[in-house]
Amino acid sequence: MEFDLIARIQRRARQRGDVVTGIGDDAAVLRPGDGRELVVTTDVLNEGVHFLAAHPPADIGWKALAVNLSDLAAMGAAPAWCTLALTLPGPDAAWCDAMLDGFFALADTHDIALVGGDTTRGPLALGVTAIGQIEPARVLRRAGAMPGDDIWVSGTLGDAAAALALAPVAGGDAPDAFLRERLQRPTPRVALGRALAGVARAGIDLSDGLLADLGHICKASGVGARVMLDELPASPPLVAAAGGRHERWNWQVAGGDDYELCVTAPPGARERILSAAGAAGVPVTRIGVSTDPAPAGPAVRLVDSGGESWVPDRSGYQHFA
Amino acid sequence: MEFDLIARIQRRARQRGDVVTGIGDDAAVLRPGDGRELVVTTDVLNEGVHFLAAHPPADIGWKALAVNLSDLAAMGAAPAWCTLALTLPGPDAAWCDAMLDGFFALADTHDIALVGGDTTRGPLALGVTAIGQIEPARVLRRAGAMPGDDIWVSGTLGDAAAALALAPVAGGDAPDAFLRERLQRPTPRVALGRALAGVARAGIDLSDGLLADLGHICKASGVGARVMLDELPASPPLVAAAGGRHERWNWQVAGGDDYELCVTAPPGARERILSAAGAAGVPVTRIGVSTDPAPAGPAVRLVDSGGESWVPDRSGYQHFA
Repeated sequence: MEFDLIARIQRRARQRGDVVTGIGDDAAVLRPGDGRELVVTTDVLNEGVHFLAAHPPADIGWKALAVNLSDLAAMGAAPAWCTLALTLPGPDAAWCDAMLDGFFALADTHDIALVGGDTTRGPLALGVTAIGQIEPARVLRRAGAMPGDDIWVSGTLGDAAAALALAPVAGGDAPDAFLRERLQRPTPRVALGRALAGVARAGIDLSDGLLADLGHICKASGVGARVMLDELPASPPLVAAAGGRHERWNWQVAGGDDYELCVTAPPGARERILSAAGAAGVPVTRIGVSTDPAPAGPAVRLVDSGGESWVPDRSGYQHFA
Repeated sequence: MEFDLIARIQRRARQRGDVVTGIGDDAAVLRPGDGRELVVTTDVLNEGVHFLAAHPPADIGWKALAVNLSDLAAMGAAPAWCTLALTLPGPDAAWCDAMLDGFFALADTHDIALVGGDTTRGPLALGVTAIGQIEPARVLRRAGAMPGDDIWVSGTLGDAAAALALAPVAGGDAPDAFLRERLQRPTPRVALGRALAGVARAGIDLSDGLLADLGHICKASGVGARVMLDELPASPPLVAAAGGRHERWNWQVAGGDDYELCVTAPPGARERILSAAGAAGVPVTRIGVSTDPAPAGPAVRLVDSGGESWVPDRSGYQHFA
């Protein structure tokens, strides 16, 4: 069975000129670009934790790659190659083919070649390692933010959290198709990350929620942050779904699974940021400013339109909660 | 919890000069060597399939890396960097620390830096992606064997299969400490793979058993193979444990989990093969010859001392059996 499955995967893997040996040997052989650095990330999705068996397999395949591409995007890297470690309870060719539909739809969009992997028996899980390349001077790290920097986010926040919160407990679908798509088929901001590399000072992708992830930038950079809650970009379906602004803010700052980018840049770079976003076709919104590090209390302060601090019900996705 | 665990791991990860950014950002940033190609492999170990929860965690951590290093060795690559995707049923610092003892004991031996990964909740599993580097002309592939080549294997075969076969059904340990060590702490033949690169014509590591893996060389190279069963290297504990030569041969050709190298090379290269093995400190044994492809029947023919063909009870590790 393993070899049938590998052949199924191999037939669909698009190649790149820099793939010397792809699927089918003990390991892949790849030719890195001259003067480039490699950017490497690994993320695993487990059934029952990150997705439900009832979800469309194409969405599961898509998301397993998307969350890794989002990490490459957050570094400013260009995707190049990936591996897929697929753990299956048993042979299920129809499920695998449908999962691969979603995986390769996204892979082909971003010209990332699947070059190897592993298929094992066990509880359903998809582990992806993605490798990108970048010009050394352009790497976008969590460290680098300076007090006075603008804080920007891409797209809209909170959609995936709303979809998850509104889904029936038994694991059915959220009522709104847009919100559900945002949860199950997130769009990694690869072109935007490339365009912001060399322009923004610090960056991260929003996987655990704005409060937690912007907190990582603050910690790595030694700064604080003040975020204007009324500036957080919200989709119309999110606004319609939220019972009020507190519920909306909870989803937007603490929900996770956004896979948008959050970057900081000096105010003098505003035009270049907007121009990068325009080139990438992704809206960006200025949501606050970096500050001197807070002497005490949380690094990220959330402020409403009256200037009052606000704290969400929970601080972000808890991996072992 | 995730962040405590990541900090625990980060503290122990040894760095290399070519790791620009290691654990703690959205992705790792690595500087590949000039003119080198990358060799990338991924293998996952699942509890209940590849190891038992009762096994020492240090052995589990060791083996998760070892099986990947064995793939790099089979290509002739020098290990450089790896990621670890750790799926845990819940927080267990003592188990993780002990697992990391084994993982880093092997990583430090081979100067491979852990540069990133993921920690998720779910059924216990360890996924490793290992990246090595190699001079382009020296890559050792499954394809390349020619009729008339000698077939060589390193070390001894069948030890791990015997340990597994002799372990109590409930999952206890095999009676012989040497055999158990061969199953739970395999030695990846990294130095040997490096030494054979550029000397051998084709190579593979023995993970599914000699018959299956040599079959991969035959298929990729378009050759057949004749293996002399009496030449298969056997450890004294294996000989003692086997009920007879048929049981021993079953373990040696169809058992799997050997993590020895199997290579082919022209007869004129014998001295260079032995010299490479000597330099790496690993014995190698000539076990047969490559032949013209068989017009019908199996590509790999196993022959006893009387010249009679022999077929094992099963053909190799079945991933979805």
